[in-house]
Amino acid sequence: MGIEVIKNPETMREKIQRARSEKHLIGLVPTMGFFHEGHLELMRRAREDCDVVVVSLFVNPTQFGVGEDFDDYPRDFERDRVLAEKEGVDYLFAPDVSDMYPEGFSTYVEVKGLSEVMCGIARPGHFRGVATVVTKLFNIIPAHKAYFGQKDAQQLAIIRRMVTDLNIPVEIVSVPTVRESDGLAMSSRNIYLDSEERKAATVLYRALKRAAEMIDAGERDASVLKEKMKELVSTEPLVSLEYIEICDNIYLKPLQELSGELLVAIAARVGRARLIDNMLFDLG
Amino acid sequence: MGIEVIKNPETMREKIQRARSEKHLIGLVPTMGFFHEGHLELMRRAREDCDVVVVSLFVNPTQFGVGEDFDDYPRDFERDRVLAEKEGVDYLFAPDVSDMYPEGFSTYVEVKGLSEVMCGIARPGHFRGVATVVTKLFNIIPAHKAYFGQKDAQQLAIIRRMVTDLNIPVEIVSVPTVRESDGLAMSSRNIYLDSEERKAATVLYRALKRAAEMIDAGERDASVLKEKMKELVSTEPLVSLEYIEICDNIYLKPLQELSGELLVAIAARVGRARLIDNMLFDLG
Repeated sequence: MGIEVIKNPETMREKIQRARSEKHLIGLVPTMGFFHEGHLELMRRAREDCDVVVVSLFVNPTQFGVGEDFDDYPRDFERDRVLAEKEGVDYLFAPDVSDMYPEGFSTYVEVKGLSEVMCGIARPGHFRGVATVVTKLFNIIPAHKAYFGQKDAQQLAIIRRMVTDLNIPVEIVSVPTVRESDGLAMSSRNIYLDSEERKAATVLYRALKRAAEMIDAGERDASVLKEKMKELVSTEPLVSLEYIEICDNIYLKPLQELSGELLVAIAARVGRARLIDNMLFDLG
Repeated sequence: MGIEVIKNPETMREKIQRARSEKHLIGLVPTMGFFHEGHLELMRRAREDCDVVVVSLFVNPTQFGVGEDFDDYPRDFERDRVLAEKEGVDYLFAPDVSDMYPEGFSTYVEVKGLSEVMCGIARPGHFRGVATVVTKLFNIIPAHKAYFGQKDAQQLAIIRRMVTDLNIPVEIVSVPTVRESDGLAMSSRNIYLDSEERKAATVLYRALKRAAEMIDAGERDASVLKEKMKELVSTEPLVSLEYIEICDNIYLKPLQELSGELLVAIAARVGRARLIDNMLFDLG
């Protein structure tokens, strides 16, 4: 049994409903394609946990803003299909935009508060697009578990909130960020970097590691940590910092004094690429 | 087997999941309680069509605006329970507000365009509250069919749009408006009317009937119809007209020349009550 590619939402739902009625455990990995090790890791986790694994591949226009890279977003369907097949994925759900957003479409899901901070500032409407398409995917593919990368920490917090608030019957599984050997978080957008930018981009990870070391050494003052991270980022002129945020991992509320489960998150522009990264800490 | 009252969303979902896995057809009737013949008619339709009938009873705070009648909205749980039991309803889902909107709740479903016209003008946020709670109910009670009254024509159009847009796997069934013997559409809010207001309130129906007669006689000019309806409403000084709208039944776009499936809708304040009514026409 190779991988089966499905474009039609109704067909997809029928397949999954049938599998559910046969008591199969269903795992969903929502993606925008152009797979890297991060995506493959999500697929492996789903493959370990579930009887039926569905990967959705949809470059979702509603989560791109005006002037963002929707048209240029890297796509390579055939390569993606082969990679997913190698991971033992059962279904690749790859709808057309017109299948997902037919004429007259006008319904949006919005997670207030969480969507308007951090990446939401530079990308207004982005998380509304994410929440809307993920709600649609959860209805088309009624999975027991859905897998998301920890790299998109704000997206994860928003999806968890949405699933709780709307009573969506799915378990959200977060999977640790996969990194290149020099620490750069894997991202489909890394392809936008030239070799100079590629080297400079590692400063996001280096800044996070610096924060981790300071936290290990007992530092609990968020402003001190942010200041040191900024200093480090400023040594790379090709990197234009967008934000460094230190916040709790559920409400994304900025912290002054570090405690509990918290997120240190960073976003920057490097050439054409907008890159994000983060680390989670549990200070009990 | 009497009716079973359930407050907890998780318990409710488990019951319905079990019934679904036993191949039962599930019907849902979402209500805010204080049942009248309109509600009972929805239950009867569901009872005819389905194996398992669930009525939800939840006065949903997010669909009431500031200064609206959330606190005063009529409630009589015990009477409602008995009435639903008489109709052979299997489950009455009656959650507390804190079960539906726990602390930190911040996700909303919005149907743009359709929510901002007609009743949406006087009640900003109302249909966002409706769309959000109905999405939640569809996730808690994964029914095959859900029953709504035609009286709330705009709500119906919005829910149909939402179900299509978000790929919610439920069939929306609309049930004709049930009227008092003098034509007044049944509404829980009719209880707000004193006897003078009660008599005056029939002018909504009389205006719709006037429109129906004129359409029957061949009138196709919306402004002529609206003018005649307004004239009639103005004969009742206790009735303060909010709007008369003549529009298509899917996009709720105002029509100048009547054609196709269309809606003639009216809203007015009568004393403390805000009343709505409508008639559907199919001019082919």
